[in-house]
Amino acid sequence: MSIKIGIYGYGNLGRGVECSVRQNADMELSAIFTRRDPASITPQTAGLSVLSASDVTSFIGKIDVMILCGGSATDLPKQTPELAAFFNVVDSFDTHAKIPAHFANVDAGAKSGGHVAVISAGWDPGLFSLNRAYAAAVLPQGNDYTFWGKGVSQGHSDAIRRISGVVDARQYTVPVESALAAVRGGENPVLSAREKMTRECFVAAEEGADLERIEREIKTMPNYFADYDTTVRFVTLDELLRDHGGMPHAGVSLRTGRTGMSGENGHVMEYSLKLDSNPEFTSSILTACARAAFRLACAGQSGCKTMLDIPPAYLSAMSGDELRATLL
Amino acid sequence: MSIKIGIYGYGNLGRGVECSVRQNADMELSAIFTRRDPASITPQTAGLSVLSASDVTSFIGKIDVMILCGGSATDLPKQTPELAAFFNVVDSFDTHAKIPAHFANVDAGAKSGGHVAVISAGWDPGLFSLNRAYAAAVLPQGNDYTFWGKGVSQGHSDAIRRISGVVDARQYTVPVESALAAVRGGENPVLSAREKMTRECFVAAEEGADLERIEREIKTMPNYFADYDTTVRFVTLDELLRDHGGMPHAGVSLRTGRTGMSGENGHVMEYSLKLDSNPEFTSSILTACARAAFRLACAGQSGCKTMLDIPPAYLSAMSGDELRATLL
Repeated sequence: MSIKIGIYGYGNLGRGVECSVRQNADMELSAIFTRRDPASITPQTAGLSVLSASDVTSFIGKIDVMILCGGSATDLPKQTPELAAFFNVVDSFDTHAKIPAHFANVDAGAKSGGHVAVISAGWDPGLFSLNRAYAAAVLPQGNDYTFWGKGVSQGHSDAIRRISGVVDARQYTVPVESALAAVRGGENPVLSAREKMTRECFVAAEEGADLERIEREIKTMPNYFADYDTTVRFVTLDELLRDHGGMPHAGVSLRTGRTGMSGENGHVMEYSLKLDSNPEFTSSILTACARAAFRLACAGQSGCKTMLDIPPAYLSAMSGDELRATLL
Repeated sequence: MSIKIGIYGYGNLGRGVECSVRQNADMELSAIFTRRDPASITPQTAGLSVLSASDVTSFIGKIDVMILCGGSATDLPKQTPELAAFFNVVDSFDTHAKIPAHFANVDAGAKSGGHVAVISAGWDPGLFSLNRAYAAAVLPQGNDYTFWGKGVSQGHSDAIRRISGVVDARQYTVPVESALAAVRGGENPVLSAREKMTRECFVAAEEGADLERIEREIKTMPNYFADYDTTVRFVTLDELLRDHGGMPHAGVSLRTGRTGMSGENGHVMEYSLKLDSNPEFTSSILTACARAAFRLACAGQSGCKTMLDIPPAYLSAMSGDELRATLL
């Protein structure tokens, strides 16, 4: 009997979950729920139902896990606690500073309905958090480092698009290789944001726009660019779409630490990802966490969980015996 | 109230656990148990009790977790099931092919006494197994690769030492960089053992020994060297102890996989370790798993577990709130 998955929200993440569920033989897609007009959406999977988000409660009891594919800014803070009262849910809430509050809200919703909710599934938060937790547990005397990139930052690209005269833009976050090398070498450098990464912007501007002004507005934008070494290149819209249409990303999470009676031995633990499609990879993590949510619910658990609370084996389609025989 | 740790076996691993427990404020060392004459052992920690292994049962109820620091060949298959009947235990059993049988034996022992036993804690099996399980769950369509080295293989060093005319030896396992690069590049190569790693041997021979014969015996040794490109260098015993006295190791566990409706996007997940002291790092993992064993036991669980069965948060000294606020 396969795990019935609902997709709530059909943007890049939702489409990624649709692909990912098809790769997992123990799961099946039940329906897509959207706040748009369902008739306006053609799923990649022929015959898959597309329904209005307002009809979601008619699927109570018919869906094992609902995967929420909305954004962290406004969608998930509202949707996850509400839907956790009706379904087991998984989300990718990634506003690090607001995770404790989101956890509390979702926990209340999930417990009210006796469901399991897995929040902040993804790679950071998510897989990188796992590595940070394991590494800090193993090397209590040490330092953590995270480098993001090279990859597209959706938030920074959006910030550029809001500047007057900009038609479209892509921003790449690029790690500073010399800083990464110093960390790997066990030098334990103290690194500012500027020393860890640079920002490369590709911008298509309106004809006749004041390019100097646009470049200045980008480079001085507080929070987004002012604290970084930023380069701006103007390209045509055709070039932008042709050369920068993908959503690649990458990152490295490291911990360096020391052991021995007097810290005489040094160690470097490194976890890195290199992704052609950031949303599809994140979706694949959501899908694996949906399996875990289903199993936790079957085991009688309820409430909010993060990947830190879930036994790794629960994410795997393999049985404990298979895992021990083949992967351990 | 801190977690009381016993060390059973006082070789490299046992000494490493002793160092590691001192780095963890929520733990304390109760005693070392040895099969040697306790009077012959001077622990690194002043005042720490050293007792005969035969007295271990007098500590039932006085030790929260016993960390077993013996070898996988003959010690642990016997000791872990026996001691799991009396204590919560952790071991580093690393004979991959025999893990299912060891698991079953230890599970029976642990359940008979109502204790928790964590087996095969370390980095492979252990942290690398975790990465393999997470990565395969996230990218079900993909390939796994593990590269070991550069580092000292104790088993291969011992094999050389057994050759007539050899005084002492160190064997380094060295990954083939071009093979690693092909994997990272997403080429999904099919690699034989020979294509993945080479073996470098440093050998101190008896004066007048037949060096050609020794080199030939090493290079043709079945299982250990015959299937690899092996180099042998003869050095003096002084050189060997001076330049090759440490126990460094390293390794990389990778999974490459594809997502999308037709596998159009590729991803590389990589987990790597670079260790100055293989036994001290492994010991640090054993110590973190001892915390997890204690918490599982406090939660009323019993039986055999591997790191795949343990929620990551259980290994950490931090509370769930702290983890969510700082590491997630």
